[in-house]
Amino acid sequence: MVTSPVVNTYPLSSYTFGTKEPKMEKDTSVADRLARMKVNYMKEGMRTSVQEHNHPHILLLQIGNTFCKLPGGRLKPGENEVEGLKRKLSSKLAANSLQPNWQIGECVAVWWRPNFETIMYPYCPPHITKPKECKKLFLVHLSEREYFAVPKNLKLLAVPLFELYDNVQRYGPVISTIPQQLSRFQFNMVST
Amino acid sequence: MVTSPVVNTYPLSSYTFGTKEPKMEKDTSVADRLARMKVNYMKEGMRTSVQEHNHPHILLLQIGNTFCKLPGGRLKPGENEVEGLKRKLSSKLAANSLQPNWQIGECVAVWWRPNFETIMYPYCPPHITKPKECKKLFLVHLSEREYFAVPKNLKLLAVPLFELYDNVQRYGPVISTIPQQLSRFQFNMVST
Repeated sequence: MVTSPVVNTYPLSSYTFGTKEPKMEKDTSVADRLARMKVNYMKEGMRTSVQEHNHPHILLLQIGNTFCKLPGGRLKPGENEVEGLKRKLSSKLAANSLQPNWQIGECVAVWWRPNFETIMYPYCPPHITKPKECKKLFLVHLSEREYFAVPKNLKLLAVPLFELYDNVQRYGPVISTIPQQLSRFQFNMVST
Repeated sequence: MVTSPVVNTYPLSSYTFGTKEPKMEKDTSVADRLARMKVNYMKEGMRTSVQEHNHPHILLLQIGNTFCKLPGGRLKPGENEVEGLKRKLSSKLAANSLQPNWQIGECVAVWWRPNFETIMYPYCPPHITKPKECKKLFLVHLSEREYFAVPKNLKLLAVPLFELYDNVQRYGPVISTIPQQLSRFQFNMVST
Protein backbone atom coordinates (compact mmCIF):
# COMPACT_ATOMS: atom_id res chain seq x y z
CA MET A 1 0.00 0.00 0.00
CA VAL A 2 1.17 3.50 -0.78
CA THR A 3 0.42 5.37 2.43
CA SER A 4 -1.21 8.78 2.23
CA PRO A 5 0.16 11.69 4.26
CA VAL A 6 -1.89 12.08 7.44
CA VAL A 7 -3.35 15.41 8.55
CA ASN A 8 -4.89 15.82 12.00
CA THR A 9 -7.98 18.00 12.14
CA TYR A 10 -9.75 19.21 15.26
CA PRO A 11 -13.32 20.41 15.82
CA LEU A 12 -13.98 24.06 15.05
CA SER A 13 -15.10 24.41 18.65
CA SER A 14 -11.45 23.97 19.71
CA TYR A 15 -10.66 27.35 18.22
CA THR A 16 -11.27 30.83 19.55
CA PHE A 17 -11.87 33.83 17.35
CA GLY A 18 -11.42 37.52 18.07
CA THR A 19 -11.00 40.68 16.06
CA LYS A 20 -8.28 43.22 15.49
CA GLU A 21 -7.67 46.42 13.57
CA PRO A 22 -8.80 46.44 9.93
CA LYS A 23 -6.36 45.38 7.20
CA MET A 24 -7.35 47.49 4.26
CA GLU A 25 -7.32 46.04 0.80
CA LYS A 26 -4.90 48.08 -1.24
CA ASP A 27 -7.22 48.09 -4.24
CA THR A 28 -10.91 48.78 -4.61
CA SER A 29 -11.31 47.00 -7.96
CA VAL A 30 -9.78 44.20 -9.99
CA ALA A 31 -8.56 46.75 -12.55
CA ASP A 32 -6.75 48.67 -9.77
CA ARG A 33 -5.20 45.44 -8.55
CA LEU A 34 -3.89 44.53 -12.00
CA ALA A 35 -2.53 48.02 -12.53
CA ARG A 36 -0.72 47.94 -9.18
CA MET A 37 0.62 44.46 -9.94
CA LYS A 38 2.06 45.78 -13.19
CA VAL A 39 3.86 48.60 -11.41
CA ASN A 40 5.18 46.21 -8.77
CA TYR A 41 6.35 43.74 -11.38
CA MET A 42 8.42 46.39 -13.04
CA LYS A 43 9.97 47.15 -9.67
CA GLU A 44 10.46 43.64 -8.32
CA GLY A 45 10.04 40.93 -10.95
CA MET A 46 7.78 37.94 -10.51
CA ARG A 47 5.28 38.08 -7.68
CA THR A 48 5.03 35.06 -5.41
CA SER A 49 2.12 34.47 -3.05
CA VAL A 50 1.65 31.87 -0.39
CA GLN A 51 -1.57 30.61 1.11
CA GLU A 52 -2.78 28.29 3.83
CA HIS A 53 -5.57 25.82 4.37
CA ASN A 54 -6.72 22.93 6.45
CA HIS A 55 -9.44 20.27 6.31
CA PRO A 56 -12.30 19.30 6.42
CA HIS A 57 -13.07 23.01 6.66
CA ILE A 58 -10.98 25.55 4.82
CA LEU A 59 -10.39 28.90 6.51
CA LEU A 60 -11.17 31.72 4.10
CA LEU A 61 -11.22 35.47 4.60
CA GLN A 62 -14.32 37.16 3.24
CA ILE A 63 -14.05 40.75 2.04
CA GLY A 64 -17.38 42.51 1.66
CA ASN A 65 -20.32 40.25 0.90
CA THR A 66 -19.02 37.85 -1.69
CA PHE A 67 -15.29 37.84 -2.41
CA CYS A 68 -13.30 35.17 -0.53
CA LYS A 69 -9.59 34.62 -0.41
CA LEU A 70 -7.11 32.33 1.28
CA PRO A 71 -5.06 33.85 4.12
CA GLY A 72 -1.64 34.69 2.68
CA GLY A 73 -0.17 37.33 0.46
CA ARG A 74 2.81 38.59 -1.36
CA LEU A 75 6.39 37.83 -0.44
CA LYS A 76 8.93 40.58 0.01
CA PRO A 77 11.68 40.52 -2.62
CA GLY A 78 14.05 37.67 -1.74
CA GLU A 79 11.95 36.52 1.23
CA ASN A 80 11.89 32.80 2.05
CA GLU A 81 8.45 31.48 1.10
CA VAL A 82 7.78 29.65 4.38
CA GLU A 83 8.85 32.65 6.47
CA GLY A 84 6.79 34.93 4.26
CA LEU A 85 3.70 32.77 4.65
CA LYS A 86 4.12 32.74 8.44
CA ARG A 87 4.41 36.53 8.43
CA LYS A 88 1.26 36.86 6.32
CA LEU A 89 -0.70 34.37 8.42
CA SER A 90 0.20 36.28 11.57
CA SER A 91 -0.71 39.58 9.97
CA LYS A 92 -4.12 38.30 8.84
CA LEU A 93 -5.05 35.84 11.59
CA ALA A 94 -3.04 36.35 14.79
CA ALA A 95 -3.30 38.72 17.73
CA ASN A 96 -0.27 40.97 17.93
CA SER A 97 0.61 39.61 21.37
CA LEU A 98 0.04 35.93 20.66
CA GLN A 99 1.76 34.50 17.59
CA PRO A 100 0.76 30.93 16.77
CA ASN A 101 3.55 28.51 15.92
CA TRP A 102 2.45 28.11 12.29
CA GLN A 103 3.35 24.65 10.96
CA ILE A 104 3.67 25.07 7.22
CA GLY A 105 3.12 21.72 5.56
CA GLU A 106 2.91 20.34 2.05
CA CYS A 107 2.65 22.46 -1.05
CA VAL A 108 -0.70 21.41 -2.54
CA ALA A 109 -0.90 23.53 -5.68
CA VAL A 110 0.95 26.08 -7.77
CA TRP A 111 -0.81 28.59 -10.03
CA TRP A 112 0.73 30.81 -12.70
CA ARG A 113 -0.38 34.18 -14.03
CA PRO A 114 1.12 34.56 -17.53
CA ASN A 115 -0.04 38.17 -18.09
CA PHE A 116 -1.32 41.15 -16.15
CA GLU A 117 -4.83 39.71 -16.31
CA THR A 118 -7.07 37.91 -13.86
CA ILE A 119 -6.70 34.48 -15.49
CA MET A 120 -4.31 31.99 -13.89
CA TYR A 121 -3.34 28.42 -14.86
CA PRO A 122 -2.14 25.42 -12.85
CA TYR A 123 0.93 25.25 -15.14
CA CYS A 124 3.08 27.80 -16.87
CA PRO A 125 1.53 27.92 -20.37
CA PRO A 126 3.74 27.03 -23.35
CA HIS A 127 5.71 29.97 -24.80
CA ILE A 128 5.42 32.00 -21.58
CA THR A 129 8.94 32.72 -20.48
CA LYS A 130 8.22 35.52 -18.00
CA PRO A 131 5.13 34.70 -15.95
CA LYS A 132 3.95 37.65 -13.89
CA GLU A 133 2.99 35.79 -10.74
CA CYS A 134 3.42 32.38 -9.15
CA LYS A 135 0.97 31.60 -6.36
CA LYS A 136 1.63 28.59 -4.13
CA LEU A 137 -0.91 26.99 -1.81
CA PHE A 138 0.35 25.26 1.32
CA LEU A 139 -1.34 23.09 3.86
CA VAL A 140 -0.95 24.59 7.34
CA HIS A 141 -1.16 22.11 10.20
CA LEU A 142 -3.05 23.72 13.07
CA SER A 143 -2.61 22.83 16.72
CA GLU A 144 -5.46 21.50 18.79
CA ARG A 145 -6.07 25.00 20.16
CA GLU A 146 -5.51 28.31 18.41
CA TYR A 147 -6.67 31.86 18.96
CA PHE A 148 -7.39 33.75 15.76
CA ALA A 149 -7.68 37.54 15.70
CA VAL A 150 -9.34 38.65 12.51
CA PRO A 151 -9.06 42.19 11.11
CA LYS A 152 -12.38 43.98 11.71
CA ASN A 153 -13.04 44.59 8.01
CA LEU A 154 -12.75 40.89 7.17
CA LYS A 155 -14.83 37.88 8.11
CA LEU A 156 -13.16 34.51 8.77
CA LEU A 157 -15.18 31.65 7.28
CA ALA A 158 -14.67 27.92 7.82
CA VAL A 159 -15.97 26.42 4.61
CA PRO A 160 -16.41 22.65 4.21
CA LEU A 161 -14.87 20.93 1.20
CA PHE A 162 -18.27 19.90 -0.19
CA GLU A 163 -19.26 23.58 -0.36
CA LEU A 164 -16.12 24.46 -2.35
CA TYR A 165 -16.24 21.49 -4.71
CA ASP A 166 -17.53 22.25 -8.21
CA ASN A 167 -18.41 25.80 -7.12
CA VAL A 168 -16.21 27.90 -9.41
CA GLN A 169 -18.95 30.54 -9.72
CA ARG A 170 -18.75 31.38 -6.02
CA TYR A 171 -15.09 30.65 -5.17
CA GLY A 172 -13.17 30.94 -8.44
CA PRO A 173 -10.89 28.34 -10.08
CA VAL A 174 -8.16 28.35 -7.40
CA ILE A 175 -10.27 27.84 -4.26
CA SER A 176 -12.92 25.61 -5.86
CA THR A 177 -10.35 22.93 -6.76
CA ILE A 178 -8.81 22.71 -3.28
CA PRO A 179 -10.90 19.55 -2.56
CA GLN A 180 -9.26 17.73 -5.49
CA GLN A 181 -5.81 18.86 -4.33
CA LEU A 182 -6.43 17.63 -0.79
CA SER A 183 -7.93 14.30 -1.86
CA ARG A 184 -4.58 12.52 -1.57
CA PHE A 185 -4.39 13.29 2.16
CA GLN A 186 -5.85 11.11 4.83
CA PHE A 187 -7.64 13.30 7.36
CA ASN A 188 -7.53 12.18 10.93
CA MET A 189 -10.50 13.84 12.60
CA VAL A 190 -9.48 14.19 16.22
CA SER A 191 -12.39 14.67 18.60
CA THR A 192 -11.44 16.67 21.66
CA MET B 1 12.34 27.03 0.06
CA VAL B 2 10.02 24.04 0.14
CA THR B 3 11.30 21.91 -2.73
CA SER B 4 8.80 20.40 -5.16
CA PRO B 5 9.07 16.74 -6.15
CA VAL B 6 10.85 16.50 -9.50
CA VAL B 7 9.47 14.48 -12.42
CA ASN B 8 11.60 13.82 -15.51
CA THR B 9 9.71 13.94 -18.78
CA TYR B 10 11.03 12.94 -22.21
CA PRO B 11 9.92 13.90 -25.72
CA LEU B 12 7.08 11.86 -27.17
CA SER B 13 9.46 10.93 -29.98
CA SER B 14 11.41 8.80 -27.49
CA TYR B 15 8.53 6.36 -27.35
CA THR B 16 7.46 3.65 -29.76
CA PHE B 17 3.87 2.58 -30.21
CA GLY B 18 2.45 -0.66 -31.57
CA THR B 19 -0.82 -2.53 -31.36
CA LYS B 20 -2.04 -5.76 -29.84
CA GLU B 21 -5.25 -7.78 -29.56
CA PRO B 22 -8.38 -5.84 -28.62
CA LYS B 23 -9.34 -5.47 -24.96
CA MET B 24 -13.09 -5.39 -25.04
CA GLU B 25 -14.99 -3.10 -22.75
CA LYS B 26 -17.16 -5.27 -20.60
CA ASP B 27 -20.09 -2.87 -20.94
CA THR B 28 -21.67 -1.12 -23.87
CA SER B 29 -23.40 1.60 -21.84
CA VAL B 30 -23.04 3.52 -18.59
CA ALA B 31 -26.21 1.85 -17.30
CA ASP B 32 -24.67 -1.60 -17.96
CA ARG B 33 -21.50 -0.53 -16.18
CA LEU B 34 -23.36 0.64 -13.10
CA ALA B 35 -25.43 -2.54 -13.02
CA ARG B 36 -22.30 -4.70 -13.25
CA MET B 37 -20.59 -2.61 -10.57
CA LYS B 38 -23.54 -3.26 -8.28
CA VAL B 39 -23.31 -7.01 -8.77
CA ASN B 40 -19.55 -6.94 -8.22
CA TYR B 41 -19.91 -4.84 -5.10
CA MET B 42 -22.21 -7.42 -3.61
CA LYS B 43 -19.60 -10.05 -4.37
CA GLU B 44 -16.44 -8.21 -3.39
CA GLY B 45 -17.10 -5.03 -1.41
CA MET B 46 -15.56 -1.67 -2.29
CA ARG B 47 -14.05 -1.34 -5.73
CA THR B 48 -10.61 0.24 -5.99
CA SER B 49 -9.13 1.51 -9.25
CA VAL B 50 -5.68 2.73 -9.99
CA GLN B 51 -4.55 4.97 -12.79
CA GLU B 52 -1.41 6.37 -14.30
CA HIS B 53 -0.25 9.61 -15.85
CA ASN B 54 2.72 11.68 -16.70
CA HIS B 55 3.46 15.26 -17.82
CA PRO B 56 3.40 17.51 -19.79
CA HIS B 57 1.29 15.09 -21.84
CA ILE B 58 -1.08 12.67 -20.18
CA LEU B 59 -1.51 9.26 -21.79
CA LEU B 60 -5.20 8.48 -22.22
CA LEU B 61 -6.94 5.56 -23.86
CA GLN B 62 -9.73 6.56 -26.22
CA ILE B 63 -12.65 4.19 -26.70
CA GLY B 64 -14.75 4.92 -29.77
CA ASN B 65 -14.78 8.55 -30.87
CA THR B 66 -15.15 10.52 -27.68
CA PHE B 67 -14.80 8.66 -24.40
CA CYS B 68 -11.32 8.81 -22.83
CA LYS B 69 -10.03 7.05 -19.74
CA LEU B 70 -6.80 6.74 -17.83
CA PRO B 71 -4.92 3.44 -18.20
CA GLY B 72 -5.69 1.38 -15.09
CA GLY B 73 -8.58 -0.61 -13.78
CA ARG B 74 -10.03 -2.59 -10.98
CA LEU B 75 -7.98 -4.39 -8.36
CA LYS B 76 -8.58 -8.04 -7.60
CA PRO B 77 -9.94 -8.65 -4.08
CA GLY B 78 -7.06 -8.22 -1.65
CA GLU B 79 -4.58 -7.20 -4.36
CA ASN B 80 -1.84 -4.71 -3.48
CA GLU B 81 -2.67 -1.42 -5.22
CA VAL B 82 0.78 -0.88 -6.73
CA GLU B 83 0.98 -4.46 -8.03
CA GLY B 84 -2.56 -4.17 -9.37
CA LEU B 85 -1.75 -0.95 -11.19
CA LYS B 86 1.35 -2.53 -12.78
CA ARG B 87 -0.75 -5.50 -13.90
CA LYS B 88 -3.36 -3.19 -15.43
CA LEU B 89 -0.77 -0.97 -17.12
CA SER B 90 0.85 -4.04 -18.70
CA SER B 91 -2.51 -5.39 -19.81
CA LYS B 92 -3.49 -2.07 -21.42
CA LEU B 93 -0.16 -0.72 -22.66
CA ALA B 94 2.56 -3.38 -22.89
CA ALA B 95 3.46 -6.05 -25.42
CA ASN B 96 3.08 -9.51 -23.93
CA SER B 97 6.75 -10.24 -24.49
CA LEU B 98 8.14 -6.94 -23.25
CA GLN B 99 6.95 -5.77 -19.85
CA PRO B 100 8.10 -2.26 -18.93
CA ASN B 101 9.48 -1.78 -15.45
CA TRP B 102 6.61 0.45 -14.31
CA GLN B 103 7.75 2.97 -11.70
CA ILE B 104 4.64 3.81 -9.72
CA GLY B 105 5.10 7.21 -8.10
CA GLU B 106 3.07 9.60 -5.99
CA CYS B 107 -0.64 9.30 -5.42
CA VAL B 108 -2.02 12.52 -6.90
CA ALA B 109 -5.75 12.22 -6.25
CA VAL B 110 -8.38 10.02 -4.67
CA TRP B 111 -12.02 9.96 -5.82
CA TRP B 112 -15.01 8.40 -4.06
CA ARG B 113 -18.24 7.03 -5.49
CA PRO B 114 -20.84 7.16 -2.71
CA ASN B 115 -23.61 5.34 -4.63
CA PHE B 116 -24.08 3.17 -7.71
CA GLU B 117 -24.24 6.30 -9.85
CA THR B 118 -21.82 8.02 -12.18
CA ILE B 119 -21.08 10.93 -9.83
CA MET B 120 -17.83 10.86 -7.85
CA TYR B 121 -16.33 13.27 -5.31
CA PRO B 122 -12.75 14.09 -4.29
CA TYR B 123 -13.70 13.28 -0.67
CA CYS B 124 -16.00 10.79 0.97
CA PRO B 125 -19.18 12.85 1.47
CA PRO B 126 -20.50 13.31 5.02
CA HIS B 127 -22.84 10.54 6.22
CA ILE B 128 -21.53 8.05 3.62
CA THR B 129 -20.23 5.10 5.60
CA LYS B 130 -20.05 2.56 2.76
CA PRO B 131 -18.70 4.21 -0.39
CA LYS B 132 -19.06 1.96 -3.43
CA GLU B 133 -15.75 2.73 -5.09
CA CYS B 134 -12.46 4.43 -4.33
CA LYS B 135 -10.41 5.42 -7.37
CA LYS B 136 -6.78 6.46 -6.89
CA LEU B 137 -4.67 8.27 -9.47
CA PHE B 138 -0.92 7.71 -9.42
CA LEU B 139 1.90 9.35 -11.25
CA VAL B 140 3.88 6.77 -13.23
CA HIS B 141 7.50 7.69 -13.94
CA LEU B 142 8.38 6.56 -17.45
CA SER B 143 11.87 5.66 -18.63
CA GLU B 144 13.57 7.51 -21.41
CA ARG B 145 12.51 4.77 -23.86
CA GLU B 146 9.38 2.64 -23.74
CA TYR B 147 7.51 0.49 -26.21
CA PHE B 148 3.75 0.66 -25.84
CA ALA B 149 1.47 -1.96 -27.42
CA VAL B 150 -2.07 -0.67 -27.52
CA PRO B 151 -5.12 -2.96 -27.89
CA LYS B 152 -6.48 -2.60 -31.43
CA ASN B 153 -9.89 -1.36 -30.32
CA LEU B 154 -8.39 1.51 -28.32
CA LYS B 155 -6.45 4.58 -29.33
CA LEU B 156 -3.60 5.88 -27.15
CA LEU B 157 -3.64 9.68 -26.94
CA ALA B 158 -0.97 11.94 -25.46
CA VAL B 159 -2.95 14.95 -24.31
CA PRO B 160 -1.22 18.13 -23.11
CA LEU B 161 -2.24 19.62 -19.76
CA PHE B 162 -3.57 22.80 -21.38
CA GLU B 163 -6.04 20.70 -23.37
CA LEU B 164 -7.34 18.99 -20.23
CA TYR B 165 -7.54 22.10 -18.06
CA ASP B 166 -11.03 23.54 -17.59
CA ASN B 167 -12.42 21.02 -20.10
CA VAL B 168 -14.87 19.05 -17.98
CA GLN B 169 -17.28 18.75 -20.93
CA ARG B 170 -14.80 16.68 -22.93
CA TYR B 171 -12.84 14.85 -20.23
CA GLY B 172 -15.12 14.71 -17.18
CA PRO B 173 -14.36 15.92 -13.63
CA VAL B 174 -11.59 13.39 -12.84
CA ILE B 175 -9.35 13.84 -15.89
CA SER B 176 -9.98 17.58 -16.37
CA THR B 177 -8.54 18.42 -12.92
CA ILE B 178 -5.30 16.45 -13.39
CA PRO B 179 -3.44 19.72 -14.25
CA GLN B 180 -4.33 21.17 -10.82
CA GLN B 181 -3.21 17.97 -9.11
CA LEU B 182 0.13 17.96 -10.93
CA SER B 183 0.82 21.66 -10.38
CA ARG B 184 2.86 20.95 -7.23
CA PHE B 185 5.42 18.95 -9.24
CA GLN B 186 8.40 20.43 -10.94
CA PHE B 187 8.71 18.94 -14.40
CA ASN B 188 12.18 18.42 -15.70
CA MET B 189 11.81 18.29 -19.49
CA VAL B 190 14.72 16.17 -20.66
CA SER B 191 15.61 16.60 -24.30
CA THR B 192 17.10 13.47 -25.83
